[in-house]
Amino acid sequence: MQLALSSWPEVEAYLARSTGIVIPIGSMEQHGPNGLIGTDTLCPNIIAREAADEAGFLLAPPFNVGNAQHHLGFPGTITLRPSTLIAAMQDWISSLVRHGFRDLYFLNGHGGNIAPVTTAFSEYYAAWSLRGEPCPVRLKLQNWWELPGVMALCREIFPVGEGMHATASEVSVTYYGYPGSVKRVEMTPKIAPIAGFTDAADYRANFPDGRIGSDPSQATPDKGARIVAAAKTALISEVSAFFGANDRLEAHG
Amino acid sequence: MQLALSSWPEVEAYLARSTGIVIPIGSMEQHGPNGLIGTDTLCPNIIAREAADEAGFLLAPPFNVGNAQHHLGFPGTITLRPSTLIAAMQDWISSLVRHGFRDLYFLNGHGGNIAPVTTAFSEYYAAWSLRGEPCPVRLKLQNWWELPGVMALCREIFPVGEGMHATASEVSVTYYGYPGSVKRVEMTPKIAPIAGFTDAADYRANFPDGRIGSDPSQATPDKGARIVAAAKTALISEVSAFFGANDRLEAHG
Amino acid sequence: MQLALSSWPEVEAYLARSTGIVIPIGSMEQHGPNGLIGTDTLCPNIIAREAADEAGFLLAPPFNVGNAQHHLGFPGTITLRPSTLIAAMQDWISSLVRHGFRDLYFLNGHGGNIAPVTTAFSEYYAAWSLRGEPCPVRLKLQNWWELPGVMALCREIFPVGEGMHATASEVSVTYYGYPGSVKRVEMTPKIAPIAGFTDAADYRANFPDGRIGSDPSQATPDKGARIVAAAKTALISEVSAFFGANDRLEAHG
Amino acid sequence: MQLALSSWPEVEAYLARSTGIVIPIGSMEQHGPNGLIGTDTLCPNIIAREAADEAGFLLAPPFNVGNAQHHLGFPGTITLRPSTLIAAMQDWISSLVRHGFRDLYFLNGHGGNIAPVTTAFSEYYAAWSLRGEPCPVRLKLQNWWELPGVMALCREIFPVGEGMHATASEVSVTYYGYPGSVKRVEMTPKIAPIAGFTDAADYRANFPDGRIGSDPSQATPDKGARIVAAAKTALISEVSAFFGANDRLEAHG
Amino acid sequence: MQLALSSWPEVEAYLARSTGIVIPIGSMEQHGPNGLIGTDTLCPNIIAREAADEAGFLLAPPFNVGNAQHHLGFPGTITLRPSTLIAAMQDWISSLVRHGFRDLYFLNGHGGNIAPVTTAFSEYYAAWSLRGEPCPVRLKLQNWWELPGVMALCREIFPVGEGMHATASEVSVTYYGYPGSVKRVEMTPKIAPIAGFTDAADYRANFPDGRIGSDPSQATPDKGARIVAAAKTALISEVSAFFGANDRLEAHG
Amino acid sequence: MQLALSSWPEVEAYLARSTGIVIPIGSMEQHGPNGLIGTDTLCPNIIAREAADEAGFLLAPPFNVGNAQHHLGFPGTITLRPSTLIAAMQDWISSLVRHGFRDLYFLNGHGGNIAPVTTAFSEYYAAWSLRGEPCPVRLKLQNWWELPGVMALCREIFPVGEGMHATASEVSVTYYGYPGSVKRVEMTPKIAPIAGFTDAADYRANFPDGRIGSDPSQATPDKGARIVAAAKTALISEVSAFFGANDRLEAHG
Repeated sequence: MQLALSSWPEVEAYLARSTGIVIPIGSMEQHGPNGLIGTDTLCPNIIAREAADEAGFLLAPPFNVGNAQHHLGFPGTITLRPSTLIAAMQDWISSLVRHGFRDLYFLNGHGGNIAPVTTAFSEYYAAWSLRGEPCPVRLKLQNWWELPGVMALCREIFPVGEGMHATASEVSVTYYGYPGSVKRVEMTPKIAPIAGFTDAADYRANFPDGRIGSDPSQATPDKGARIVAAAKTALISEVSAFFGANDRLEAHG
Repeated sequence: MQLALSSWPEVEAYLARSTGIVIPIGSMEQHGPNGLIGTDTLCPNIIAREAADEAGFLLAPPFNVGNAQHHLGFPGTITLRPSTLIAAMQDWISSLVRHGFRDLYFLNGHGGNIAPVTTAFSEYYAAWSLRGEPCPVRLKLQNWWELPGVMALCREIFPVGEGMHATASEVSVTYYGYPGSVKRVEMTPKIAPIAGFTDAADYRANFPDGRIGSDPSQATPDKGARIVAAAKTALISEVSAFFGANDRLEAHG
Repeated sequence: MQLALSSWPEVEAYLARSTGIVIPIGSMEQHGPNGLIGTDTLCPNIIAREAADEAGFLLAPPFNVGNAQHHLGFPGTITLRPSTLIAAMQDWISSLVRHGFRDLYFLNGHGGNIAPVTTAFSEYYAAWSLRGEPCPVRLKLQNWWELPGVMALCREIFPVGEGMHATASEVSVTYYGYPGSVKRVEMTPKIAPIAGFTDAADYRANFPDGRIGSDPSQATPDKGARIVAAAKTALISEVSAFFGANDRLEAHG
Repeated sequence: MQLALSSWPEVEAYLARSTGIVIPIGSMEQHGPNGLIGTDTLCPNIIAREAADEAGFLLAPPFNVGNAQHHLGFPGTITLRPSTLIAAMQDWISSLVRHGFRDLYFLNGHGGNIAPVTTAFSEYYAAWSLRGEPCPVRLKLQNWWELPGVMALCREIFPVGEGMHATASEVSVTYYGYPGSVKRVEMTPKIAPIAGFTDAADYRANFPDGRIGSDPSQATPDKGARIVAAAKTALISEVSAFFGANDRLEAHG
Repeated sequence: MQLALSSWPEVEAYLARSTGIVIPIGSMEQHGPNGLIGTDTLCPNIIAREAADEAGFLLAPPFNVGNAQHHLGFPGTITLRPSTLIAAMQDWISSLVRHGFRDLYFLNGHGGNIAPVTTAFSEYYAAWSLRGEPCPVRLKLQNWWELPGVMALCREIFPVGEGMHATASEVSVTYYGYPGSVKRVEMTPKIAPIAGFTDAADYRANFPDGRIGSDPSQATPDKGARIVAAAKTALISEVSAFFGANDRLEAHG
Repeated sequence: MQLALSSWPEVEAYLARSTGIVIPIGSMEQHGPNGLIGTDTLCPNIIAREAADEAGFLLAPPFNVGNAQHHLGFPGTITLRPSTLIAAMQDWISSLVRHGFRDLYFLNGHGGNIAPVTTAFSEYYAAWSLRGEPCPVRLKLQNWWELPGVMALCREIFPVGEGMHATASEVSVTYYGYPGSVKRVEMTPKIAPIAGFTDAADYRANFPDGRIGSDPSQATPDKGARIVAAAKTALISEVSAFFGANDRLEAHG
């Protein structure tokens, strides 16, 4: 059940069954020579949509632009300053809590979001903690690649060249979701370097084509399908546990 | 050409042809008994995607949550506070300008965004104006229903009950784009009341089911198709003029 | 009754009669070769002061600096960044609401304020809407030139060269209010050009002497007097309706 | 020469003679049983206007709402939160500096503004200091009652009951400027108490009619005239010294 | 009793005896050729620690970085922008008030903090005043050198060259507290110049070695000991009066 | 070499040798029945001070209040809202960079700081990345307990009851540094529970005495000495590598 495709009476009815919602959160940033700029938003959205269809939980529209300052050296990248991201998340959370949502599960597609999203959670809780009122809301951040079993599968499929950015796995997931956007590009070097980075200029100097440690030319829709299937199952299990025993999710048709 | 489905080298190549980009901007808010919560984001996205495919301009991912405070009385609505919206738009604009984009065309789906988006433009220009440096960027906001010829067509299709919120037209556009989400609901009263409003409580008191002046039970995918076709043509014409003579857009295959 | 010239016990007594207040809002910005920098603040203040004297409503001091970033290319212009304007308006509104004012009518003198002031209203309402408490306050923005009958009169007086900025009408209103500041300047060209604009540099390039589409050399105090008289009558009528039937305004002496 | 009543070419001509400007800064707040809510804005404006007329310096419109949180217990008071005041002052200063003004002299009418205005100056300088660029601007805050000779005169005129808030002097200055607004009110007690205060509730509890230590029933327009005359002379002298030897001010007519 | 060295049950027990706390507030900024960068934080901390040990009040950790923009021309200086200082103080105050503290006494070591700290107090009170709820908290700022008797003693010890920044007294206090950090430096000129300043560049131009009007080569630990002893006694007296008759402070050991 | 105890000429001389600085960053928050509220600030400060003395690098004063919203249920805790922490860190970093520091190593004592400090780094880099200028600064966050070899030693010393908050190790480190503050308290239960948490109320409900998974009654100064010795050695090694080969640190006599 997708929020964007639901009417408000349908959401009202859902809230009588469950106070939980899943929110994909990602980024618009370069993903190397053959990866899609939307990769980090598309991956959690693809996985969560299939899971929502199967398990019946409510799926919010993606928080589609995240913290990607270090990728700004590559055209197409869009970032929120972290302070803006924190402000925007306060508004998303407050809006949902206003309606009665209490269990907000953010499925994340971007490592660079982990710190600012965690910080945004603290900012939300801090308002309650400083007032001294108990906060009735639980906020959870989960990276899709850390869903139980997923990373092991990715390493099994890509024993070499999975990498850390523009990974073979994430590119595969987007190729599965958007097979019309598969791009065939030779990688030079075959496997990208690994290093640290600070700002966008430093990142581009260290990683000339944008990849970190990966060979995403191995990506295919079929491999993506296997990863999505595993992630979907794990997500349904995690979300069911997080939402709690009182929730009565209903699968769509 | 969709930014989210492009690689950075593809965006780099695009920038050699054009410094223009189209950004759908909408809202997540109730749209009456049978309208989708994502209506205002979906409509400009549907129209702009078809236009981008035909004309070859670059389409950004949608700015999908806008200023919808007055709809918070209905579950599912998500708003940004206007001040957050302004901050987020500074970041989107600054990111795109950083890469060389100069002509940013925002196709809007929500009346409640007009004031804050216009204000966000002023905030962006003000930074240049206060520094005393000429700003090389042009920002344009266009409501899809005000594209030349569109409103006349909507009134022709819906001579009665087009309305101001949860309009028959916008619901039709989303039904065309998402035929699996068509909802059949009886409207009571047939045509919703018309009035002013302030905050969410006042809005809900004035408009018990969320509609303003409309009868969206008339909406069908076919009617939406006609509206999208007209809007697409008008958008291509407007964007071509806005981007300027030097741009060389290339339609996708 | 002017707030700035009243004592607090007088305001307390007023609040027992009415919870309404009128707030002129304008700008400090260039108004062409013969227009006053304060034009946009002076106009609503002149009109509202006469109306307040006649009808007995309370008149706040003017919010005298607004959103004028695009005029910063001309010396003397002062702007608030839109985000500052929004913050300041929250404070003005909150202060007045704290005392029991509920009906706040902003009489505006500057087109560039419409978007940010409307946005500031949304920001105010959003705080209530997000908390889920009904907001007891009504905020209204009215441009003085859009008061019923005023624009028709302006066009009658100035059939040619009324224009869009540094208009013959607004300059006349200030000449009526400040006859000692009448300035005689030849206009070249007679009627200024019409175009769009972005930041201050773009504005100055498009409009070398600051005017848009106008010939304000036609302005005289007498013409201003006619406009003020019409605007005053319309304002009294509008304010009376806005404040509501329970208010008992008392004209001064 | 008043900025609000000047045209931009007049300001441009002024800037060729002087880079200095005087900005009255005040407050909208209760001033006891017979004092005007606008007292703190009106006083510096009255004094500075006479001085500007005589000495020919440029006078900005008043920054008319200041930091008055402690007076909010009395109807009619309007405050900016200090953080808003600081933001607004950055914009005023930046606008003026953009045009070439370098010597900004703020004539203050309100004790509660001293800390936040001084802080706003630090905020402005800090931007330069952190960038490591020399700031070409000088900002000065002067309380009108601390102009050389003024306080001695006030004490001479009001040996008893001058007080600290709603002083006999400041009320006299406004009565001189606005003789139509003279209010005759018996004071009980004759001289108001003296104490400290924190927020608005504490203030009102300590000072039931708003005065601190004063008996403003002694105020008359004539006494105000004497104070204004002394303050005007002192202000002209101070401003001339502050603007510097290169400035060539020209008195009006 | 130092907060940083206490356990929470000890603080809980303290709150049953007293709702008062002392918070040293200072700066990290250059203090001339032989003064310590931490001088303004160290001085109130040294004095307050001795007083807390003797009188048993609770001592918070120092707010150790303040408003020092004008000293940024000298390496080692760290500043908060005033707006950041105000935000940080809201959080410190809100945290302490959350636990039941009601009487917050800030012992200040830096003149440049007076305006922003006073402003931060207004910001805190303003939230209550705008809501219209009585604020139960009292905030007090005291400069250690203005504790009764202290300035007279400093002038007695240093009849010449006490100065305004990098004073002989404050350097002595830190030498008393940190005798291992005594630095012997010849001063040229013997007594530093006196002038005004704006930003960091202006400050450094006016005061080449950082001092204002002082000869801190006179500083010794012994002189510092005398000053600390006097300040300690005065502080205990002031704090006892400020905290009120109901508090039962207990000296350590 | 401690910044707070240095003069500016000493810092200037240091900058000729090295552009690196170490900044302890911690928190003021409850640490269970026998732990000090300052634990998280004291630990990195104790370790870094010994290392600075031995290796000669410059040590900043501690950033002594961090993100501790979840501990506000226990008296004595002070928190910054994360957004304030981010703002304050921009100022600290900008101040140090202004002087020529380029390698900023933050030694952290609090798990709850990791996300907001990492986010603050992104905020700093983002300003450069959005401007498109290469950032010359490297920012590093290291938790003291993750210095090479330290965690292994802690587990060796405390095979049972080391825990996650109010750990036996961190309490030992503070007891070593402040032996006068050793507190003997029986723990009930012997080992505290382990769970997740959200806001302050939830935290206190889950962890009634503040500890998570630990038995800090095992803490002694001697054990702390061993940990500090190991951490000091590891820190010197890490800092030397981070500062780079060109730096010439000089140990203090």
